[in-house]
Parts: sequence; structure tokens; C-alpha cells
Amino acid sequence: MHQLRSKLFNKNKAKSLLVVLDGVGGIPRNNKTELQVAKTKNLNKLVKLSETGCHIPIKPGLTPGSGSAHLALFGYDPMDFDIGRGVLEALGLDIKITKKDIAIRGNFATIQKNGARKIITDRRAGRISTVENNRIVTKLSKKIKSVDSVKISFKSGLDHRFVCKLSFPKNINQLQCMIKETDPQIDGEQPFEPDNLNKESAKVSKILKKLLILITKILEDEKQANFVLLRGFSTYPNIPTFKELYSIKSASLTTYPMYKGISKLVGMESLNLDSNNLLGQIKALQKNYDNYDFFYLHIKKTDSYGEDGNFNKKVKVIEDFDKYIPSILKMNFDTITITGDHSTPSMMKSHSWHPVPTLIYSKNAFSNLSKSFDEVECLKGNMQIFEAKNLLTYIFAHSNCLGKFGA
Amino acid sequence: MHQLRSKLFNKNKAKSLLVVLDGVGGIPRNNKTELQVAKTKNLNKLVKLSETGCHIPIKPGLTPGSGSAHLALFGYDPMDFDIGRGVLEALGLDIKITKKDIAIRGNFATIQKNGARKIITDRRAGRISTVENNRIVTKLSKKIKSVDSVKISFKSGLDHRFVCKLSFPKNINQLQCMIKETDPQIDGEQPFEPDNLNKESAKVSKILKKLLILITKILEDEKQANFVLLRGFSTYPNIPTFKELYSIKSASLTTYPMYKGISKLVGMESLNLDSNNLLGQIKALQKNYDNYDFFYLHIKKTDSYGEDGNFNKKVKVIEDFDKYIPSILKMNFDTITITGDHSTPSMMKSHSWHPVPTLIYSKNAFSNLSKSFDEVECLKGNMQIFEAKNLLTYIFAHSNCLGKFGA
Repeated sequence: MHQLRSKLFNKNKAKSLLVVLDGVGGIPRNNKTELQVAKTKNLNKLVKLSETGCHIPIKPGLTPGSGSAHLALFGYDPMDFDIGRGVLEALGLDIKITKKDIAIRGNFATIQKNGARKIITDRRAGRISTVENNRIVTKLSKKIKSVDSVKISFKSGLDHRFVCKLSFPKNINQLQCMIKETDPQIDGEQPFEPDNLNKESAKVSKILKKLLILITKILEDEKQANFVLLRGFSTYPNIPTFKELYSIKSASLTTYPMYKGISKLVGMESLNLDSNNLLGQIKALQKNYDNYDFFYLHIKKTDSYGEDGNFNKKVKVIEDFDKYIPSILKMNFDTITITGDHSTPSMMKSHSWHPVPTLIYSKNAFSNLSKSFDEVECLKGNMQIFEAKNLLTYIFAHSNCLGKFGA
Repeated sequence: MHQLRSKLFNKNKAKSLLVVLDGVGGIPRNNKTELQVAKTKNLNKLVKLSETGCHIPIKPGLTPGSGSAHLALFGYDPMDFDIGRGVLEALGLDIKITKKDIAIRGNFATIQKNGARKIITDRRAGRISTVENNRIVTKLSKKIKSVDSVKISFKSGLDHRFVCKLSFPKNINQLQCMIKETDPQIDGEQPFEPDNLNKESAKVSKILKKLLILITKILEDEKQANFVLLRGFSTYPNIPTFKELYSIKSASLTTYPMYKGISKLVGMESLNLDSNNLLGQIKALQKNYDNYDFFYLHIKKTDSYGEDGNFNKKVKVIEDFDKYIPSILKMNFDTITITGDHSTPSMMKSHSWHPVPTLIYSKNAFSNLSKSFDEVECLKGNMQIFEAKNLLTYIFAHSNCLGKFGA
């Protein structure tokens, strides 16, 4: 579909904004969802002028991770494309990943040695501070430069998290990177070895095992972070960019590393924010309006509070966003799309598969089918339930930049 | 799907009518679409007795051309089948196209010579009259019979349009017919050469270049139509017919060449009309009722007025059609299907991707879900939103001529 969409695409001057309220969809608590409880007078006005529906992120009943849910929103079939978690984290930390690299999510952890046995006593090393993390990563970086012919680098994330990058002399692909994650996911267990899960990955596994020995020796004298757990071994995914597919300039306005990472992967430029919040995002949008064709604005906290099971704070984030709608409308976008990447019902404290309310505001909208922006009213719209990978086709159609299919 | 449908098909005595109101779907103007404004007491009665839904012609967000939209209504996956524009035009002008032929849409045009440079001053040769067109086509037909071993024939269309057919000694396929269109699409430019876009088309390109030299010489002394622009080079598409798939006799009632052409392509017989309007179509339907199993009746003007942005006249065409419903009901069809091939909102003055209201009237209908025949009420039906390529399966199901799938 992204190839067909690319073929039919005719660039024009349309400006599009895609707002993703992460995990915005919910299920009812006392008969009402977070969106239904939220007081959103601006959204309620906007939805009546918009085309509406609910998207299914992947397929009916499937709960997505953030990466695949976003790929779908960006028009890629999440069944065909996959971003490894390591690559996502790396891009989010501004680490450049090429086709020669393997990116790995690392946790600092605490182990207790019991003879030859190592028992994990804290998978997060007591959630050491980011300052501590920086100190340890600097130490590792100084002492480990390479293993055999493979360059090794480290970068701190928040708290106990870091990214480790392996840079090979030649291109490496997903098949050569099927490695068992070393994190057993609970305390009190032994870590796993980074074994290869297929033949092609034998060489990578060997490097990783040598690397682990080096790291463990260097961390020996640390009290808390005396070990690392490695997950999400992944290579650079082969995803055609927005620029390649549509020759448009696209930009992202994100406050969290991972979403910045995803947007970079599809070729969006990540815009600098004066303040790392919605106000900063809106200001950057205004400032850069003339320079791009397509903007992606990501709001994280709806998902965070959903995951926490904090219904009321999730409502509050939606209400806060509502206040910025007049400023957004003033900018005069040709299409404004508001949706989530998936649902994160506070009632479930986790991502879910439930359909996600979606509105597309444009002069071509079949309007007035939904009276408010929520899970129930959006079902009444004429997009009904659709797969998220089709959203971009709708957005481009509303922007009048898709040619006719067939004679 | 058409193969599965064919396999499950059991011929019975059912008579089916498919009415296509071209481009009937709209988007609201002052909160109401053309279908919502139209006073259609007969349709409103009929819709309550019918199964309803809205079809998506191709895929979400894709706006179809007439050919692919009709192929979908006739049960073919428009992603798998494609009718070239040249073939569509040729069939519409009653030109017989075989697997040995290439059909081309031609425009008479005006050029100005500037040394070796030819500049197009009017891509439509001042929209010369059809009479003028006939005169020039007769001249070309007399002087050009063949190029090398390829027979050449011409036929006038309306105004400045004509069709040119190349008949090769052997079958020729789409791969041998990838040719650059010569029309630069704006005045003031030079025409393109009919270059081959792949190796396999080199021979055809050579013939076309020789043909263009001959034509240009013959038209030299014309004031307006002193050049031709060639587009839509296409070969006979390999589409199994209704007869082959279902062993039924099908007929079309059309007032415009292109739709007659499409219906012929799937094996429908085009019925003669006493008058080239809806009255003529209804009379022909009555007269031929006993002789066919499946009838396709096409109404063009809903689309034409949509394209013109003439909301009120589009409403009027719908109201005019409504008056004929009692006559249609009297004929006692087992299923009557009313829909469009796509939407053509007057507000957009063009085809669009918006879902198209659909009703199927039969004794097997899940009735009473929609109160009127329009974009909003039909969404409430139990077909909800479905891809147009599935419509024929529904029609045959309502006609009791599909066996069970699986044990």
C-alpha cells in the first residue's frame, strides 16, 4: 500500500498535522471513558467539522507496541516492517545507526555471585541516578573500544538504562542478529547467555559473550551496577522514508526519545523545542510552519497515566491538549488529524487492542457524524473501523494530493 | 474472489438489476448531501425493505477512475485487473478490440512550427466539431492503412477526440505496450515522442513514430487540427466474462460510450435504446426482461453535475430517477441493487474516495436499518462499509445462487 500511495502521490502545497495522543483510547469506568469524561469544548467543535472513525492499530484483537503502532500511523504495514527495540532506543538518544550496526537496550543490574552462579538481585540496579549512569558509561567507554574487529560504544539513557552499539566492518542484517535476550525478566534468577538463535547469528553471539566478560570485569567493583542485562538486539530496519516515498518535508515534535527515534526512521526531522512540553511543541510548530509539509506531534502523558491506571490524570492531559486547539486551528493547516497510536485504558493499566478514535479535519471532510471526540461517537463516522495503516491514505486524500487509481 | 464466487455459483432463475448512479455519493453542503436534499419518496420506501451499507470503491482513501470503479462493482478486484484508457474509449465507440490490438486515445491538436521545434498551441485544436473530426478521420483512414505489417484504423469520438487502433499480426500484451504518452498536458510545450518505456515495447514505439510522421504530413494543411496527441496506449485486458464465470446472460443499458465499453469487456450485451435517456433504458429493460439474468443500468448525469459542482442539478437527476422506481418494481426482479461507482461530491467537483451508499432489495434482505437512501443512513445498514469488489457476492447471495462455502 505504501508503494501504491507513493505512486499516486502528487505533491502540492498542502500542510498536514498529525497529532498522536499516545494511548488515548480507553474502556469505560462507570460507563464513561477518559475521553468521554474529559471536558473538551474545542475538540467537540472540531469533531463536528471532521471526518471520523476508529482505527485498529494492527489487526483485530492485537495489542501493539509503540514502534509498530507508529509505523502503521505513518502508513507502513506493521506486518511487513518492524523496528527493533534497540534501534528505537538508540535513535531516541541521538545515536546514529547504520546498516553496519547492532543496537542493544541495556539495563544496569545488581548481581550476587554464588560460586560460579550469578543471581540477579535487582534488574534495575536500584534505579541508579542518571548521573551515576553517566559515570559508569564513561568508565565502560574508556576501557572498551572494540571486540575483535567490532567497534563498541555505549550511551547513557535515563536512570538505569543505556544503549550499546556494535559496529561491524560490513553491513549486517536481521537474520544475523537473532540473539537470546539475557534478561530473565524477574529478580532471583540467573541471567541468560546471549546465545544465537540461528546459525547466521553465531558470530554476533561470540562477540557479545566476549563483550559481556569485559563489561563484567570492569563493573566488578561497583556496588549497585555490577552487571548488565542486554535486550532488543536489533539492526537498522529497511524502511523507505517519507522523502523517498512522497518527496515531502516532514518534521516531528516530540518530547520523548523513542518517538523522536521512530519519526527519524521514516525520515522526519526532529524539531528543537524551547521547552520539553506541549507549549514548546506548539511554539515550534508555529515557528516551523512554513518549512515543512507534514508535521507529527506526539503527546506522551495520556499513555503514561493510562499505564499507571490514573484515570483522572489521563483525563486532565486530554483537557490540557484541548486548550491548544484554537492555536493549532489558527495556523491554517489543510488537514488536521487527531488520534492515538493505540488505546491504553486506565482500567487495564496497559496498552490494548481497542479501536482508537480518529478525526480528520479538512474542507473535504464528510462532517457532522460524530458529536464528540470519543470511542463511541467516532464509531458513527464514515471511516467506521479501519486499519491504521490506511490512515495516511485518508490524510493525503483530504489534502488533495493523491491521483486517481486506475482509468 | 471472483474465482471462488464462480465456483460457488449455481445458476437459477433469479433476475437481478444493478443500477449505478454514477458518482452519486457526496459530502454535505450546509449539513446535507445531494442524496439527503433530494426528494425521493420511492427510494425512501425501497430502502426500508432493503439491506444497506456503503462501499469503498478500491481501498480506504483511494479515489477511483470509472474503469476500475466499475470492475469492482462487477466483482473483479481492481488491484488485479486494469482496463487501459485506450481500450475503454475504443469499446465505447463500438470498435472491436482483440488480443492482437493496441488501442490509443487521440486528441486532435494545433501546433506551430518553429524550425524543427513544434509547439502545441492548443491541445484540443479549438475543440473542433464532431463533423470536422469525421472529415479529418475519413481523410486519415483513406491515406493510412498500415505501417509495416501493422494495420492502422481510426474512429472519431466527440469533438476533438478519436481512437486509433493498431492491429498486429500476432497477439500482443501489456508488457509490449509500455509507451510514453505524447501529450505534455499543457499548451506551449513540445509534444513528447512515443518512446518505449521498456525493452519489450521497442517495436511498438518504432511503429508509432513512423505512424506519427505519416499523420503529421497528412494533417499539414489543416488550420486547427494539424497534429495529434496520443495517450492511453493499451492492450485488451484479460478479464474472464460473466458468461465464463457464472454461465448467466447479462445485459447493459447505458447512454455513454465508456460504460457500454466496460460492460462489453465483462461479457455483457449492450441493449439498444429507443431513446438515449432513462426512459429509453427503462423501456429496453421491460422489453428484454425475459431474455437475460442480470441487467446493469448506468445513469451518467449524477457524476457529470457533480464534476460541474452543480449541486442542485445533481439532486434533480436523483429525483428524476426516483420516479422510475415504481416501473422497475413492477418488473418483479429478485434483487435490485442501487449504488454508485464512486462519490462525486459537488462540493469537490471531482471523483472522491468517500464511501458510496448501497441498497440491495430482495426478499432475503435484513431490512429496516436505514430510513433513507443516503450516505448517513446507509452507514447504519448491516453491510456497513465494505469493499466494492464484494458487492456481486452479496447480490448473488440475495438471489439464492451461491452455494455454501466449506462443509
